[in-house]
Amino acid sequence: MNTSIVRYILGQVLKVESILLFLPCIVSLCYGENDIFAYLIVIGITGFIGVIGTIKKPESNVFYLKEGCIATALSWIVMSIFGALPFVITKDIPSFTDALFETISGFTTTGSSILTDIEALSYTNLFWRSFTHWVGGMGVLVFILAIIPLSGGSSINLMRAESPGPSVGKIVPKLKETARILYMIYFGMTIAEMLLLLIGGMPVFDSITLSLGTAGTGGFGIRGDSIASYSAYCQWIITIFMILFGVNFNAYYFILLKDFRGLFNMEEVKYYFLIIFSSIAMILIDVSHFYKNIFTALRHTAFTVGSIITTTGYATADFNQWGDSSKFIIVAIMFVGACAGSTGGGIKVSRIVLLCKGIRKELNSYIHPKSVKKIKFDGKPVEHEVFRATNVYFMTFMILFTISVFLISFEGYGGTTSFTAVAATMNNIGPGLAHVGPTENFSFFSDFSKYVFMFDMLAGRLELFPLLIMFHPAIWKDLMASKVKSKKVSR
Amino acid sequence: MNTSIVRYILGQVLKVESILLFLPCIVSLCYGENDIFAYLIVIGITGFIGVIGTIKKPESNVFYLKEGCIATALSWIVMSIFGALPFVITKDIPSFTDALFETISGFTTTGSSILTDIEALSYTNLFWRSFTHWVGGMGVLVFILAIIPLSGGSSINLMRAESPGPSVGKIVPKLKETARILYMIYFGMTIAEMLLLLIGGMPVFDSITLSLGTAGTGGFGIRGDSIASYSAYCQWIITIFMILFGVNFNAYYFILLKDFRGLFNMEEVKYYFLIIFSSIAMILIDVSHFYKNIFTALRHTAFTVGSIITTTGYATADFNQWGDSSKFIIVAIMFVGACAGSTGGGIKVSRIVLLCKGIRKELNSYIHPKSVKKIKFDGKPVEHEVFRATNVYFMTFMILFTISVFLISFEGYGGTTSFTAVAATMNNIGPGLAHVGPTENFSFFSDFSKYVFMFDMLAGRLELFPLLIMFHPAIWKDLMASKVKSKKVSR
Repeated sequence: MNTSIVRYILGQVLKVESILLFLPCIVSLCYGENDIFAYLIVIGITGFIGVIGTIKKPESNVFYLKEGCIATALSWIVMSIFGALPFVITKDIPSFTDALFETISGFTTTGSSILTDIEALSYTNLFWRSFTHWVGGMGVLVFILAIIPLSGGSSINLMRAESPGPSVGKIVPKLKETARILYMIYFGMTIAEMLLLLIGGMPVFDSITLSLGTAGTGGFGIRGDSIASYSAYCQWIITIFMILFGVNFNAYYFILLKDFRGLFNMEEVKYYFLIIFSSIAMILIDVSHFYKNIFTALRHTAFTVGSIITTTGYATADFNQWGDSSKFIIVAIMFVGACAGSTGGGIKVSRIVLLCKGIRKELNSYIHPKSVKKIKFDGKPVEHEVFRATNVYFMTFMILFTISVFLISFEGYGGTTSFTAVAATMNNIGPGLAHVGPTENFSFFSDFSKYVFMFDMLAGRLELFPLLIMFHPAIWKDLMASKVKSKKVSR
Repeated sequence: MNTSIVRYILGQVLKVESILLFLPCIVSLCYGENDIFAYLIVIGITGFIGVIGTIKKPESNVFYLKEGCIATALSWIVMSIFGALPFVITKDIPSFTDALFETISGFTTTGSSILTDIEALSYTNLFWRSFTHWVGGMGVLVFILAIIPLSGGSSINLMRAESPGPSVGKIVPKLKETARILYMIYFGMTIAEMLLLLIGGMPVFDSITLSLGTAGTGGFGIRGDSIASYSAYCQWIITIFMILFGVNFNAYYFILLKDFRGLFNMEEVKYYFLIIFSSIAMILIDVSHFYKNIFTALRHTAFTVGSIITTTGYATADFNQWGDSSKFIIVAIMFVGACAGSTGGGIKVSRIVLLCKGIRKELNSYIHPKSVKKIKFDGKPVEHEVFRATNVYFMTFMILFTISVFLISFEGYGGTTSFTAVAATMNNIGPGLAHVGPTENFSFFSDFSKYVFMFDMLAGRLELFPLLIMFHPAIWKDLMASKVKSKKVSR
C-alpha cells in the first residue's frame, strides 16, 4: 500500500482544519470570550502536525480505491479527534468521549447531542459545533480537492469514498472543477438561507449557525428546544431549505446551465418529492387534532418530514407524542434518507428506487422468463455492477444496523430506544424516539455505547465500506509490511 | 396462460383435502364428539368440488413457472378457505375471519392463534388444527407430486414455487421419487417424536398433536400455557425435534445413504447449529438469574431458541419478561429462520450466509479490484443468478415487512407489538413480543389487520413471489383473455 500518500493527505486535512479553526476565533473576539486561547492552542497543535505530515511529498502518486478509502476514513477520524479538543480545553464538554461524540456527530452531520444544557455553551463553541456540520456536509476531502492540487493520481477515488450515493457523478470532466462548482452552490445556498432568516427577524448569530446546520443537514440547534421557539416564518424557511439541501446537487447545476430537460429527467428527485408530499399528507391526517388549527399542524408536519428525510434532525414538535402510524412513517423515512449527491444521509432515495425496480424486474421474470430487459434509471440502463453494489450496500447496512442495535440493547432502555437510536445515528439524523426523542439527548448512554454510536455515525456518513475496510486483515498486513519496509530503508 | 391445468391442480388439492379431513372424523369417533357431522359435510362439499374440477383433463401439459406460482398460491388459499369451514360449522370459532386466520396460521405452520381459550375446543378440532401444521410443513403440492402422476409437463415448477430456500435441490433425478423420500423421512421422524413423548408419560392425544406441530414447525399447542406444564423430559424431546425439523432434509437423505462426506459438506447446517449454540449461550448469560438453577435456565433458553429459529413458536417461558439483549436475539433469529429444504420458515440460514459472503466479496474487491473470485457455497461456485435472486428476495421481504408494519401501526398498540406481530407472522413463527407475546394471542386485532397477517403468513410460507405475482397486471390480463377465449369456444 502507498502509505506515504495517505500520510500526505492526512497532513493536508489537518492543515485545512487548523485554518478552519480561525473562524470560531473571530466569533470569540466578537463576543469577547476567553475561549479564543483554547482554539489558538488547538490551531497550533493541528497546524504543526499538518505541516510535519506534508513536508515530505509522497513517494509516488499511485492511488487506488484502497488508499482512497483508508485516507478518507482516517481523515474523518483524525479531524474529529482534533476538532473535539476545543470543547475539552474550554471545559464546556469536560469528558473527551463526550466531546468526540459531539464532534463526530457534527462532522458526520448527524446532530445527536450529549449536551443536557445546550445554552450553557459559549458562543465560540456553539459556532464551532454548528460549523462542523457545514464542513462535514459537503465533505472535507471534496474541499481539499477543490483548493489543493493533488498532482496526478486517480483522486476520483477520494471523492468516490466520501461522496454519498451509489455512483459518483462527475458534473464536469475535471474533478477539481466539479468540486469547486459544488462548493459554490453550497456556499450560495447557505448565504441565501441566512439572509432570509435575518429578514424574518432572527438574531444574526442564530441565523448563521442554523443555516450552517441546515446546509450540512446536520441538526445541532443552539437552543434547548431546537427550532420550536422561532417564528412560523423562520420555521417555514428552514423547512424549505432543509428539503432543498436534500436534493441531488446536480439538479442545481442543471438549473445553472438552464438545462431543464436534464433537470426534469432526474428520477431520484421526483421520487424524493413524492415521498415527502405523501409522508406529509399521511402524517397530517393522523396529527391534525393535536394542534389548534390545520396550518399549525401542516407546519409541524412539513418541518418534521423535511427534517427527518433530509436527515437534518431539527425539531419544532415532539413527535414522540404522535400516533403509532405517524411514528412509523418517521422511522421509515429515517432509512430512506435524502438524494444521492446531496448533503443528506440515510440509504438514499436512488438506492431505494433501484432496489424497488429490481423487485419489479424479478416479478416480470416470473411471467416472461426469457425477457432480458435491463433496469433503467433516468432513462439509461443500469449497469449490472451498480445494481449488485446497491444490493450489497443494503445488506451490509442491515447487518451493521442489527449488530449495533444488539450492542445498544445491553443498556436496557427498551427496544424502541435501541432501534431508533441506532437508526438516528447510522442515518445521520439526530433524534430518534422514546429515550432519544427530539426533546431528549444521548448523554445517559455508557461510554461503550457512545463509541458504538460514533462508529455508526462515521459508517453512515462514509457509506460503510471506507470504514469497514479498516477492519480487513489484508489492510493491517499491508500496513505492517510497509512499516517494516520503511524501517529497513531508514537503516 | 394455461388455466385448465391450474383448475385441474386445484381440483386435485381439494380431493386430497377431503381425504385428509377423514382423520379428524376418526378422532371424533374415538372421543364420541358430535363434530363428526360438521366434518362430513365439509368432506362432501370439498370432495364434490374437487371431483368436478378434475373430471376434465387439462387441455395441455404446458406448464411454466407462472402457472406453477399461480397454482401454488391459489391452492393454499382455497385449501385454507375449505379447511376453515369445520371450525365455523362446529361453532368453536364462529367468525369466519377468525377461522380462516387460524387455518392459514395452521397450514403456513405459523402457529399464531386468535383463540383466547384453547382448551375449550373439541378434541376433533384440536386435532385438525394441529394436523394442518403437518400438512403445510412439507407442502401439499409436494404431497400431490408424491402420490398423483401429473403426466408430463415441468412439474418441477410446482415444487419450486412451494419449497423453501433459494434453490430447489432435487435429491434424486426423478421428482416424484424426491417427493416420496422427503415424505418418508418426515413421517418417520414424526412417529419417532411421538413415541419418545409417549415414553415420557405424555398422554396419547397430546403426543400426537404436539408431534404434528413440531414436525411442521407450526406451534399450535393444545393447552393455554403451550408446553410449559409438561415435564422437563418432554420439553427436551420437543426442543431436540424442533431443531431437527429445522435442518435441511437433504442431510437426512445423506444419512440414509451413509454419505457422511456429503453431510459434513453442508455449510448451511453448520451455520444453523452455530447460530443456535451461540444464541443459547448469549441468552443464558442474560437470563440465568431468572431461574432457580442453571439447568432450568438452560432448558428454557434452549427451548426458546429452538422454537424461534425453527419458527415453530411453542413456548415454555414468557420471554417477554427477559432482558432487552435476549429479546433482541430472539427477534433477530426470527428473521434468520431455519435451513432451506426444512419445514421451517424465516429468511433461511443459507440466504443469510450467501448475503454475508457477498459483503465479504465486496470488501475484498476494494482491496483487490481485479479479482474475479466467485462466491462459493458448499464448496461449489454460486451462480450469479442465485446470488441476484437472493438479494432481490431479501429486499422484497424488507419492503413487504415495512408495508405490513405500517398497516398494523394504525391499531395503535405500540411499535414493538406491530413490529414483532408482523415478524412473527411473516416468518411463520407464532408469538412475538409485547401484546403478541407467548402468553398472548392475536384475537384483539381488527379484521383488517387479521387479513394483513393472513397475507403475510402466506407470503412468508410461499416465499413471497408466488403470492405477489397474483397482483401483477399481466396475470389478470391473461386470465381475462383466457376467459373470453373459452366463452368464444363454447359458443
